[in-house]
Amino acid sequence: MAKQTRQRILDAALTMFNAQGEPNVTTNHIADELEISPGNLYYHFRNKDDIIEQLFARYEERMDGALAAPQGRLPGLEDIWLQLHLVFECIWDYRFLYRDLVEILSRNRRLRLRFARILKRADEQAHTVMRGLSQAGVMRASSDELAATATNVLVIATFWLNYASARGDKDEHAAIRDGIVQVMMLMAPFLRDAERVHLNSLTRAYLD
Amino acid sequence: MAKQTRQRILDAALTMFNAQGEPNVTTNHIADELEISPGNLYYHFRNKDDIIEQLFARYEERMDGALAAPQGRLPGLEDIWLQLHLVFECIWDYRFLYRDLVEILSRNRRLRLRFARILKRADEQAHTVMRGLSQAGVMRASSDELAATATNVLVIATFWLNYASARGDKDEHAAIRDGIVQVMMLMAPFLRDAERVHLNSLTRAYLD
Repeated sequence: MAKQTRQRILDAALTMFNAQGEPNVTTNHIADELEISPGNLYYHFRNKDDIIEQLFARYEERMDGALAAPQGRLPGLEDIWLQLHLVFECIWDYRFLYRDLVEILSRNRRLRLRFARILKRADEQAHTVMRGLSQAGVMRASSDELAATATNVLVIATFWLNYASARGDKDEHAAIRDGIVQVMMLMAPFLRDAERVHLNSLTRAYLD
Repeated sequence: MAKQTRQRILDAALTMFNAQGEPNVTTNHIADELEISPGNLYYHFRNKDDIIEQLFARYEERMDGALAAPQGRLPGLEDIWLQLHLVFECIWDYRFLYRDLVEILSRNRRLRLRFARILKRADEQAHTVMRGLSQAGVMRASSDELAATATNVLVIATFWLNYASARGDKDEHAAIRDGIVQVMMLMAPFLRDAERVHLNSLTRAYLD
């Protein structure tokens, strides 16, 4: 029963953070939403940052899964597409974290280190994928170009939803789809002509 | 004298917002810092959002200047480099706005529209620059590639400082320099071989 309440608090907090932005939701708002007393909430969590840390642990597990490479073979374009979907869906489900990223990380050194670790892991995965494409002869880029592109992939993925919001995009599912295309377009110019044409037609079909 | 106090409030607010993050600075903190009474501050500004709106007006004028194209000739690689410097320096001087962009814009519809206008203007300028390079025969990209690249230029420029912070970069001047290089690297793969080599050597010299 206690465990169930704890779970309900986390679920409600995630929903409210995502909908309203973490800075605009207090522990009292969460307790009100669940029709429990603030005292009951504080029995389960020390404060709002404690709730955020628990949600972060869920997010971290999910993102680590999304960043796992396909085993035992070189990744192809379709693998990258699928992996980007998993990553963007994870970002979407925990979008409160990305909306106020610097502010949330500034309050908690542990989260700061853990988020930096995830970025590092994502960077390694982007390198692995692009090196795979290079080994398969599908992509051609110098190591400087590959490193710069991996970094740009991370920045676009991390902040795409914020950009779409700042630009005034209304359709949030379209925003995810557009973000995936923007990331693919970072790699496109380094692809062999046949794959570049293939990617362009995949992209057009996907956006229509 | 009243004007001078008004100016001092804006200057102190900008410094404190940039150093601590806008969500962590109240009007009382600003009044304390200036050793004036809260009442005196409220004589000049209705509330914190009023201060932010005045700072935004300064930012907007500065960014509009940075986004002005060189007149009467096609822009070259060096022009782009210089313009990126002006843009990144403006972002740096008003970095509080970018740190908590979605949260700040969510509170004020006017700022939301004005920021969207700046993004639109930046997008047009990125298109103009790249079309200039294409007309000069220096760059080759389809119109889809050009549009996707312009968008990625905007996302990287807008969120680079947040990314550097989330990644744990300590040296802030290095962060600006790195951001400019990341933007240039978005255009690099579309450059003619001679200019691509030229850009690579410019970049190495710049980073050393």
